[in-house]
Amino acid sequence: MANEKLQIIPLGGLGEFGMNCLALHFGNDILVIDAGLMFPEEELLGVDIVVPDISYLIENRSKVRGIVLTHGHEDHIGGLPWILSELNVPVYGTEFTLAYVEGKLEEHRLLDDAELIEILPGRRFSLGVFSILPIRVTHSLVDCVSLAIHTPVGIVLHTGDFKIDLSSPDGHPFDLQAFADLGKQGVLVLLQDSTNVDRTGFTPGEKAVIPRLDDIFGAAKKRLFFSCFSSSIHRIRIAMDLAHKHGRKVALIGRSIDNSTEIAQDLGYIDPPPGLIIHPNQIKDTPASKLCVLISGTQGEPMSALSRAAVDNHRFAKIEAGDTVLLSSRVIPGNEKAIYRVIDHLERRDARVIHDDGTHGLIHVSGHGSQEELRMMINLVRPRFFIPVHGDYRHLKRHVELAAATGVPEKVILLEDGDVLTLERTHDSVHAEKTGRVTTGRVCIDNNSTADVVEDTIIRDRKHLGEDGVFLPIIAINKRTGQVEGAPEITTRGFAADDPDLLRNARDIVARTLDQSSDEERKDYGVMKDKIRGDLKRFIQKNANRRPLIMPIILEL
Amino acid sequence: MANEKLQIIPLGGLGEFGMNCLALHFGNDILVIDAGLMFPEEELLGVDIVVPDISYLIENRSKVRGIVLTHGHEDHIGGLPWILSELNVPVYGTEFTLAYVEGKLEEHRLLDDAELIEILPGRRFSLGVFSILPIRVTHSLVDCVSLAIHTPVGIVLHTGDFKIDLSSPDGHPFDLQAFADLGKQGVLVLLQDSTNVDRTGFTPGEKAVIPRLDDIFGAAKKRLFFSCFSSSIHRIRIAMDLAHKHGRKVALIGRSIDNSTEIAQDLGYIDPPPGLIIHPNQIKDTPASKLCVLISGTQGEPMSALSRAAVDNHRFAKIEAGDTVLLSSRVIPGNEKAIYRVIDHLERRDARVIHDDGTHGLIHVSGHGSQEELRMMINLVRPRFFIPVHGDYRHLKRHVELAAATGVPEKVILLEDGDVLTLERTHDSVHAEKTGRVTTGRVCIDNNSTADVVEDTIIRDRKHLGEDGVFLPIIAINKRTGQVEGAPEITTRGFAADDPDLLRNARDIVARTLDQSSDEERKDYGVMKDKIRGDLKRFIQKNANRRPLIMPIILEL
Repeated sequence: MANEKLQIIPLGGLGEFGMNCLALHFGNDILVIDAGLMFPEEELLGVDIVVPDISYLIENRSKVRGIVLTHGHEDHIGGLPWILSELNVPVYGTEFTLAYVEGKLEEHRLLDDAELIEILPGRRFSLGVFSILPIRVTHSLVDCVSLAIHTPVGIVLHTGDFKIDLSSPDGHPFDLQAFADLGKQGVLVLLQDSTNVDRTGFTPGEKAVIPRLDDIFGAAKKRLFFSCFSSSIHRIRIAMDLAHKHGRKVALIGRSIDNSTEIAQDLGYIDPPPGLIIHPNQIKDTPASKLCVLISGTQGEPMSALSRAAVDNHRFAKIEAGDTVLLSSRVIPGNEKAIYRVIDHLERRDARVIHDDGTHGLIHVSGHGSQEELRMMINLVRPRFFIPVHGDYRHLKRHVELAAATGVPEKVILLEDGDVLTLERTHDSVHAEKTGRVTTGRVCIDNNSTADVVEDTIIRDRKHLGEDGVFLPIIAINKRTGQVEGAPEITTRGFAADDPDLLRNARDIVARTLDQSSDEERKDYGVMKDKIRGDLKRFIQKNANRRPLIMPIILEL
Repeated sequence: MANEKLQIIPLGGLGEFGMNCLALHFGNDILVIDAGLMFPEEELLGVDIVVPDISYLIENRSKVRGIVLTHGHEDHIGGLPWILSELNVPVYGTEFTLAYVEGKLEEHRLLDDAELIEILPGRRFSLGVFSILPIRVTHSLVDCVSLAIHTPVGIVLHTGDFKIDLSSPDGHPFDLQAFADLGKQGVLVLLQDSTNVDRTGFTPGEKAVIPRLDDIFGAAKKRLFFSCFSSSIHRIRIAMDLAHKHGRKVALIGRSIDNSTEIAQDLGYIDPPPGLIIHPNQIKDTPASKLCVLISGTQGEPMSALSRAAVDNHRFAKIEAGDTVLLSSRVIPGNEKAIYRVIDHLERRDARVIHDDGTHGLIHVSGHGSQEELRMMINLVRPRFFIPVHGDYRHLKRHVELAAATGVPEKVILLEDGDVLTLERTHDSVHAEKTGRVTTGRVCIDNNSTADVVEDTIIRDRKHLGEDGVFLPIIAINKRTGQVEGAPEITTRGFAADDPDLLRNARDIVARTLDQSSDEERKDYGVMKDKIRGDLKRFIQKNANRRPLIMPIILEL
């Protein structure tokens, strides 16, 4: 029985939040769990998304049996277009998860060549030497699973994202029995979500927000704008129920919330009564007190529907004095300034803004389990080895401490991206050891997400972009007045420096973008950078067929 | 009695946090309250600080009688070097406040020409037509005052920053009686601090942190690193008391905390027992369990002592496994990523990091009054008009709502920077109305704060810098390895483009800076940008006597 070696190799998400990706390797088989993206830090100018470096998978191309998805959030599926364009392997996921994946692959024209295979909670399937049991868990999204992977060395349980919601709005309960069963069979390794390891107690269930949201719906006198993460299917369902209860029609505004709701409706997660949902162009004919607008943009994303509505720049959504704007979401760290800018714009219009600042009661709940849920999972499945996943270094560290204190018979192990953990069975015991490192890293991608319409299928990484040159439009804006001072200048590196026509035209494009923006928009550098970048990108692609890295620089005067 | 017109004109701090500055204008006299700075948003690359545009004061130069300071925080005094270099008027402040001002002016070689006049709480003084009574208040800093300004139209009370600390560690109580007296005399206008308008209840007093800090001092086994805002004199005093109690010597590390402590000691706010404070070079000879290091850098500032110690790049402060690092401070929004980066570095060294994440009890308290204190002030002084100061638009708005609900007989007024509010006495009543706007704005300043030593007295604003050209070093760093790929490039605008020698030498400077940094530092773009910017700035100034705007761009590969 010697030489039965299982390797666990995190490729992303252990050392950062986002771009979750982990490989299991046994003999000639590699199984990949999740393929997420991460949104770039502000310092990474000119990049849309960040995905894990999959050199290790590419080097072992012939062994990769497939990618199994735990659920449909971007940090678990968002890297798929990039990864599949490099390594086209079958993708396994639940019905709802695959619906998100389909849309994403279609956008990048990768759907026709992709092999998507639906899995069912409770039904085992095989991938090479691995036999995988998806187990239903609860989370802010629907149709989420943990994965119990039976390997020759023992069972590896990957929780995916979860909380233990004892009364999930969709009626699909967290499968406590399945985890208890696994505990009886014996789990070799538990890989558990670290996101909320800092929070004591239990995370409230999704229904816990209903009482306060009900109050707010009841108190709203005029229009009610409701914003939540577009993938918060439970929350959208609750908002629609409350709108119905309070006699408000529902209009959906924003591409992502539209898309999510359509999928959720198709698959039966949302079942609005006939006539509840109206088209955005019916907003103007609906009395303010009879209207609820579900709108994208809780994080102050510059081009989101809510950000645009907040500066009177949305075709359908106009925010007026006395309207209520409810942000049923958290402030993701790093987004504070963008969110508060939007709130300030709304307050200037005398809208009542309610966000999760601790003074409005429970208007948002996390989708991730807190300490007691993490301990409960450890108690349910009693793993011999424990490895935290999903988190910055300090979360992983806190999580190994929590697991050790809760009781893990053999060992708690802190792995980081690229570490290779080898589990080897000898006689009746299993030995676990870090045996090396593989190449990992972050790949910066420019995927045209700022454009309204995806114009091409090319996904380029930062390196290629650099080869296409760097394009730096420099604009001087007077912050107080929002006026542009002088003409925009453009500095380039490695591209177009010798093409005065192109440069002049590009300057004109920037000038036009500035011209066509309102004073309020021009004072909002996030908005202006996005707009200038989007317009220039389209122009250069069309006229020069190049895709330089575009980084607008705004000088404030 | 007609034509007795008082104008209140906010020049900064009403619509943003920071750069507080407000003018009172009556006849031939203008009095200025505070002269603060603001730290730039991340989007304002290449700028150190932001100060208010004082065009209005310069246009009325002959009328400006002086600047009266409420206290010594940067958002109230940090703009003085800039303002005094444009408009040299007398500056009034309490003893402690002026000690901070002196240091600041000396750095910029402006002290010799400045006229600094000490004021005492409870002692009235005159400036033109105004007679001003400073009233002692409590705050996170010491020697802070509100200003009751007697004008021909009535009393204008500006609270400055305050909370109502009923047991201030320095033994100087909040002067409730003086405010009650004013209330009896009749206050025309109350200008009140809006910072904590979102917080219910009362803000805890400064001593409220003692029990938990005592526990943490007691539990620390090895070195204890204590970090707080360098101006938190009460907190520094408490830390020293606890160090003494627990048998630890105290070393001070970081220029700002050193400076603050020295002033506080000179003026009797801190009185450490002989032998408590040791020199940083004694750290290595002090047993770990007998050492407490007071260290600057709670906000993850890239060049701060704590940030450098966290990557083993500080001469005296080395952080080892088992050490405790206590951040007795809040996370200022926008600084999350920088702070968590430092915490991650510390965790990797197996230090125990305790910061104010809600799980460690009361280890920090705010210096600003919460809703009940704001209501109490309104009840004490019963103003006829109320104007909120210090805050983003939404804070000001919330504050006018709070004041209106608390009860203000005449009017609550939301002013923003540049608004002119005219108060006119006719017979026995006073009429208040917005009568226009003056020029205001933000001036971006490059003041060499990144250099260890201030090298010149020139303070240049962004506009001038722009005229000196723009200098864009472009560096490609591999995030995972921290390795630099390829040679650094430099793009310029309006400067040095035709000087290949200078450009080559500048590239060498950048290469050397990169070379001399550790891998960990190179992965920390904030640190690298600051280092490159500082080194290049010195080089260009010395070799070309120019001060271009320097904006390092890091491409992640």
